[in-house]
Amino acid sequence: LQKLGKADETKDIQFEQFVLNFSKQLTEGSKLQKDLRTYLASVKAMHEASKKLTECLQDIYEPDWPGREDTYRIAENNDLLWTDYHQKLVDQALLTMDTYLGQFPDIKSRIAKRGRKLVDYDSARHHYESLQNAKKKDDAKIAKPVSLLEKAAPQWCQGKIQAHLVAQTNLLRNQAEEEMVKTQKVFEEMNTDLQEELPSLWNSRVGFYVNTFQSIAGLEENFHREMGKLHQNLNDVLVTLDEQQGKPSANAFTAI
Amino acid sequence: LQKLGKADETKDIQFEQFVLNFSKQLTEGSKLQKDLRTYLASVKAMHEASKKLTECLQDIYEPDWPGREDTYRIAENNDLLWTDYHQKLVDQALLTMDTYLGQFPDIKSRIAKRGRKLVDYDSARHHYESLQNAKKKDDAKIAKPVSLLEKAAPQWCQGKIQAHLVAQTNLLRNQAEEEMVKTQKVFEEMNTDLQEELPSLWNSRVGFYVNTFQSIAGLEENFHREMGKLHQNLNDVLVTLDEQQGKPSANAFTAI
Repeated sequence: LQKLGKADETKDIQFEQFVLNFSKQLTEGSKLQKDLRTYLASVKAMHEASKKLTECLQDIYEPDWPGREDTYRIAENNDLLWTDYHQKLVDQALLTMDTYLGQFPDIKSRIAKRGRKLVDYDSARHHYESLQNAKKKDDAKIAKPVSLLEKAAPQWCQGKIQAHLVAQTNLLRNQAEEEMVKTQKVFEEMNTDLQEELPSLWNSRVGFYVNTFQSIAGLEENFHREMGKLHQNLNDVLVTLDEQQGKPSANAFTAI
Repeated sequence: LQKLGKADETKDIQFEQFVLNFSKQLTEGSKLQKDLRTYLASVKAMHEASKKLTECLQDIYEPDWPGREDTYRIAENNDLLWTDYHQKLVDQALLTMDTYLGQFPDIKSRIAKRGRKLVDYDSARHHYESLQNAKKKDDAKIAKPVSLLEKAAPQWCQGKIQAHLVAQTNLLRNQAEEEMVKTQKVFEEMNTDLQEELPSLWNSRVGFYVNTFQSIAGLEENFHREMGKLHQNLNDVLVTLDEQQGKPSANAFTAI
C-alpha cells in the first residue's frame, strides 16, 4: 500500500489524539454525572431525615413551652431550604450536565462513520492506484515487441487493437478516479467538520467544569449559610426554653 | 371490698398520671433516637457522596490548571468537616440520648413490680379485714346463748373452750396482720421511690430535649458555616480557572 503524504499522516495522528481526548472527556463527564446523581439522592435522603427530626422536635414541644411557634417556622424554613437547594442543584448543575453530555452520542457516531468513510476512500484510492500501476506496465509493453495476437492480425489492423486496449484501460481508470474523488469528498467533509468540532468540544470542557462546580459551590455556600442561620435561631429558642425551665415560677414544667 | 382512704385514692390517680407521662416520655425518646439514627445514616451517605464529587473534581483537574493544590486542600477539608460533624453528632447527641433512654428499662420493670406488690398488699389486707369482720361476728355470738358443745360440756369446762376459740382466732388475725404490714411495707418502699423518681424523670425531659437539640443546632451551625466558607474557597479557585481559560496566552487550554 502506498503511504499517505507526510501532511496526511500528521493529520491522522492529530485526529487520533482528538479521539483520545473525546473519550477521556466523555468518561469524565459520565462519571461526574453519575456522582452528581448520587449526591442529589443523598441530598434528598438527608432532607427527609432532617424533616423527620424537626417534626420530632415539634411533637415533643409542649403547648405551654415558650417558642413553640418558632419551632414551626424553623421546621418550615428547614424544609424550604432543602427543597430549594435540591431543586437548584438539579436545574443549575444536573440539567446543564445533561445538555453537555447530550452532544456526545452524535459526535461519537460521526467519528465511527468517518472511520468507515476513510475505509471507502482508502479502498477507492488503492483501486485507482493499482490501475495506474497497470497503465505504467502497459506503457512499458507498448515499447516492447508486439503480442502474438497482434502478430497474427493483418498489419493494417494492429494499430486499432492497440488503440482499443488503451481506450478500455483509460475508461476503467477514469471511473476509478471518479470513485476515488467522490469517496475522498465524502470523507473530507466529515473529517473537516470533526477536525473543527472535536478541539472545540475539548476546549469547552474547562468552561463546563467551571460552570458546574461553580454552580455547586455557589448553591452549597448559600445553603450552608442559611442553614447555619436557621440553627442559630433554633439555638436561641432552646436557650429561652432552658431559662424558662430554670425559673421556679414556671408552671410549664410541673410534673402533671 | 373496703375502699382505700380518700388520700390513698388521690395518690393512686396521681401515680397513674405519672405512669402515663412515663410512657409518653419513653415513646418520645425512642422516636427521637430512631430519627437521630436515621439522620446520622443520611449524614454518612451524604459525606460519601460529597467525597466522591470532590474526588471527581480532582480527577478532571488537569496538572497545568491553576489552583490544583487548592482543590486537594478543599477536598481534604471537606472530608474532615463531614467526619468531625458526624462524630460530634454521635458523641454529643446520640450517646447522651442512649444514656437518657438507658434509665427507662429499670424504671419500667420497677413500675410493673410495684403493681405486683400492690396486688400482694391488697390481698393481705382483704384477708386481715375478713378475719376482723369474723371477730366482730364472734363477739356478737359470745353475747348470745352458748353452743350445744358448751351446753354438753361440764360447767367448769365451758369457759376454757370459749378461751381456746378466742385464742385461735386471735392468732390467725395476728398472722394476717403481720402479713398485711409486711406486704404494705414492701409496696410502700417501692411506691415512695417511684413517686419521687417518676416526676423527677419527667421533669428531666425538658433539659434533655434542650441539650439534645441545642447540641444538634450548635453542631449544624458550625458545620454549615465552615462548609459555606469552603465552598466560597472552591468558588474562588474556579473563578481563577475561568479567568485563566479566557486568556489567549494560556497554553493550558490548547486542544492537544
